[in-house]
Amino acid sequence: MYAAGSLFQLLRDGRPRTRAELAAETGLARSTVTQRVDSLLASNLIGPADKAASTGGRPPTRFAFNPNARFVLAADIGATHARLALTDLACEVLAEAADELLVAAGPEPVLSWVNATGQKLIAKVGRDPADLLGVGIGLPGPVEHSTGRPVSPPIMPGWDGFDVQGYLEDRFGAVALVDNDVNIMALGEHFAHWSNAPHMMFVKVATGIGSGLISDGRLHRGAQGAAGDMGHLQLPHGTDVVCRCGNTGCLEAVASGAAIAAKLAARGIQAASSGDVVTLARGGNIEALQLLRQAGRDIGEVLAAAVSLFNPSVIVIGGSLSQAGEHLIAGVREIVYRRSLPLATQDLRIVQSSTGDRAGIIGAAVMVIDHALAPAQVDLMIAAPAGT
Amino acid sequence: MYAAGSLFQLLRDGRPRTRAELAAETGLARSTVTQRVDSLLASNLIGPADKAASTGGRPPTRFAFNPNARFVLAADIGATHARLALTDLACEVLAEAADELLVAAGPEPVLSWVNATGQKLIAKVGRDPADLLGVGIGLPGPVEHSTGRPVSPPIMPGWDGFDVQGYLEDRFGAVALVDNDVNIMALGEHFAHWSNAPHMMFVKVATGIGSGLISDGRLHRGAQGAAGDMGHLQLPHGTDVVCRCGNTGCLEAVASGAAIAAKLAARGIQAASSGDVVTLARGGNIEALQLLRQAGRDIGEVLAAAVSLFNPSVIVIGGSLSQAGEHLIAGVREIVYRRSLPLATQDLRIVQSSTGDRAGIIGAAVMVIDHALAPAQVDLMIAAPAGT
Repeated sequence: MYAAGSLFQLLRDGRPRTRAELAAETGLARSTVTQRVDSLLASNLIGPADKAASTGGRPPTRFAFNPNARFVLAADIGATHARLALTDLACEVLAEAADELLVAAGPEPVLSWVNATGQKLIAKVGRDPADLLGVGIGLPGPVEHSTGRPVSPPIMPGWDGFDVQGYLEDRFGAVALVDNDVNIMALGEHFAHWSNAPHMMFVKVATGIGSGLISDGRLHRGAQGAAGDMGHLQLPHGTDVVCRCGNTGCLEAVASGAAIAAKLAARGIQAASSGDVVTLARGGNIEALQLLRQAGRDIGEVLAAAVSLFNPSVIVIGGSLSQAGEHLIAGVREIVYRRSLPLATQDLRIVQSSTGDRAGIIGAAVMVIDHALAPAQVDLMIAAPAGT
Repeated sequence: MYAAGSLFQLLRDGRPRTRAELAAETGLARSTVTQRVDSLLASNLIGPADKAASTGGRPPTRFAFNPNARFVLAADIGATHARLALTDLACEVLAEAADELLVAAGPEPVLSWVNATGQKLIAKVGRDPADLLGVGIGLPGPVEHSTGRPVSPPIMPGWDGFDVQGYLEDRFGAVALVDNDVNIMALGEHFAHWSNAPHMMFVKVATGIGSGLISDGRLHRGAQGAAGDMGHLQLPHGTDVVCRCGNTGCLEAVASGAAIAAKLAARGIQAASSGDVVTLARGGNIEALQLLRQAGRDIGEVLAAAVSLFNPSVIVIGGSLSQAGEHLIAGVREIVYRRSLPLATQDLRIVQSSTGDRAGIIGAAVMVIDHALAPAQVDLMIAAPAGT
C-alpha cells in the first residue's frame, strides 16, 4: 500500500513536488522516495516540472503528473451509431471518429470497426501503440463488467456472452474494460460537470431508456451490473402496450424515442426513429412536442420512486431525445417534484446533459483511467528495479 | 496519508507484526515506524502480541490491534422501544440495556434516558469514561447525518432539527454520530453476516417500513440522508388508504405492522400494534398469517422496482414483523422473483434478518468505529510526540 502507485496518487492532483516534499508528505524514507520517483520517471507517468525555489545553489527538481504519458481508446457503441476517441490521461480528446453502425450486425463487424478505426486514429495522432493505457467501451445492453461480456442483451443479437474484453485485449495489447452505454455516460457526465455531487442519476432517453447511478462519487453497478435498468419498470398507471422485452406496460414501451416515433407514425406523421422525433420537435411540430412532454411525465412517474429510494442531488437527462428542447425535461420535473418525498426533492436539480453525445466516450476514458492508474495497477505497470 | 493512522489500518486485520515487518510492508523508514508504533502503543490502540520467532538472541516484539483499547456506546431508538449497548472495537457487546420508551415523548426524556443508562452501563463494566471512542445512535425518522439532526421526522414530535449530536457529545465528551434506525440496522446486518456481499438491501418491516442500501460495502445515505425511504412509495395497484404522511396509497399505509393490526381490529380481532400481529401469527391465527403474506406481496411490488434499479445480491428482511415466521418473506419472494428483471434476480437471495433486534446496536457501533478509527481520526487521537 505504500509503493510507487500510492506516491503517484499524490501527484495526480497536478501539483508539482520535490523529492523532499514527497518524503515529508508521506513519511517515506528519502531513499525510498528517490527509488520510487525514479521508477515513475522511467515509466514517464511523472516528469520534471518547474524548478523549485531554493535558498541557494542548484534548485531541487519538482515532479508532476504527466497526462501525456499514455493515451486511452474510448468507444461508445449505440444501437445504430458508433463513436470512437483517443484521450490523454486527463480525458482530453486527442482525436475522434464516428460512423453509422448497426449493433445488431453482431460483434465481429462492430468490433472490427473499433479495431480498424482505433488503429487509424492511433496512427493519425502519431502515438506509439505501446503507450495505449487501455481500451474502454460502452455497449447498448447489460454487461457483466467483471468479465467484459454482454448478458442477454435484448437489441444485440449474437453478442450474448461474447468475450468483448478478450477480443479487444488481443487486438490492442492493452487492458480492455466493458460496460453498458448508460453507465459510461453517467461516468462521463459526472467527471465533466458534477464531480462535486456525490449522488447523481443519469437518465438516457433515446431509442431505449436506461439510467446510471453514481453513489458517493462512484458508479453503482450492482451485483450483475444490471443496476439502473429503469426502461422495463412498470408504469404506475398500467398500460397494455407490449414491450420488446415481452412484458406489457414497461416505461420504454411508452416513453422511448421508438415509442414516440410509432405514435407519430400512427397519426400519419412521418417518423421512424428517435432522430425523426428530435427533428420534428425542433421544427416545432405540436404533436411531437406534446408526446415528448408526456414521455417526460411517464419517465417522471418511474423516477419519482427512484428519487425517494436513491436520493440523488442531481438528475441529468441525456440521450438524443434530451436534445429536442425543454419539453421532455419539463414533463420529468412536473411529476418528480409532485410525487417524490419532500425531503428527497429539497435540493434536487433536474438538468439537461451538458456533455451531449460526448458523455459516453469521456466516461469510457474515465473508466479506463480510474482502473489503470489505481495504485496497485501502477505498481504492476512499473518494472520494479532489482532489490525492491 | 502515511501517518500513524495508516499504519494502524494495516494492524486492524488482527495479524501481529514486528517493527521490521511493518517497515518492509510500508516502505516507511525504520525510525518512522518506531516513532509511530510508539504513538500507537501510547494510545493503547495496539499492544505487544506474542514474541516473533527469531534466529537467535532476544526475539523482536510483534504488535497487534487491541480491540479493548476503547469502547463504544451504541443506541437504537425505536418508536416505542429503546436499546443501548457498550461494545468493544470489534463490535462485541460488553453490556446492554433496553426499555419501553416513547420516541414521541420528545428528545429530552429519550436522550436523558440514553445519558443516564449509558453512564450506568459504563460504571457497570468498570471502564474509564475517557476510553469512550464515541456514541452512535439510530432514530426512527429521517436524519441529516452530517449535522446529526432529525429532519421533519413524522413520528417524532419535538425532534425536528434538534441537535442530537451536540447533546450527546456534551454529555459523554466523545464524538456522537446520528443516523436513522434502518440505516444502522443495514450496517449491523451487513457487518455481522454479509460483509462479502457488496450490494445489499435491508428492509425493516415493523410499525413502519423503510430500507437501507449498501453499495460496494458502504452505506448509501443519499444527498439528504433520505435514501431507502420506501414506506411512502405508491403501490402500483393504487389504494385509497390515507397514510400518516398525508398521501394515499403509500406502501406503509397498507403493509406495515400498524396497518395489519388495524385490519385485524376491523375484523374484530384484538390487535393494537405490530407486537400483537406477531403474537397472533406465532399462535397460528389464519387471518394474521394471510394479512402478513399479503403485506409481503405488497412490499414485493415496491421492492421489485428497487431490485431492478439497485441490483442487490441480497435482500435482508428485518424488523419485528420478520420474526413472525415465513409468511411475510414468502409473499415478498413471490412478487420480486416474478416482477423484477431476470438478470437482476439471477442470483438474488431474499433472507430473514439473523441479527434480529441486535442489528441496530451493532450497526450503531460499526458507524462509530468506521468513523473514529479512520486514518485521519486516529492521527488526531494520538498526541504526536514533539518533533513530528
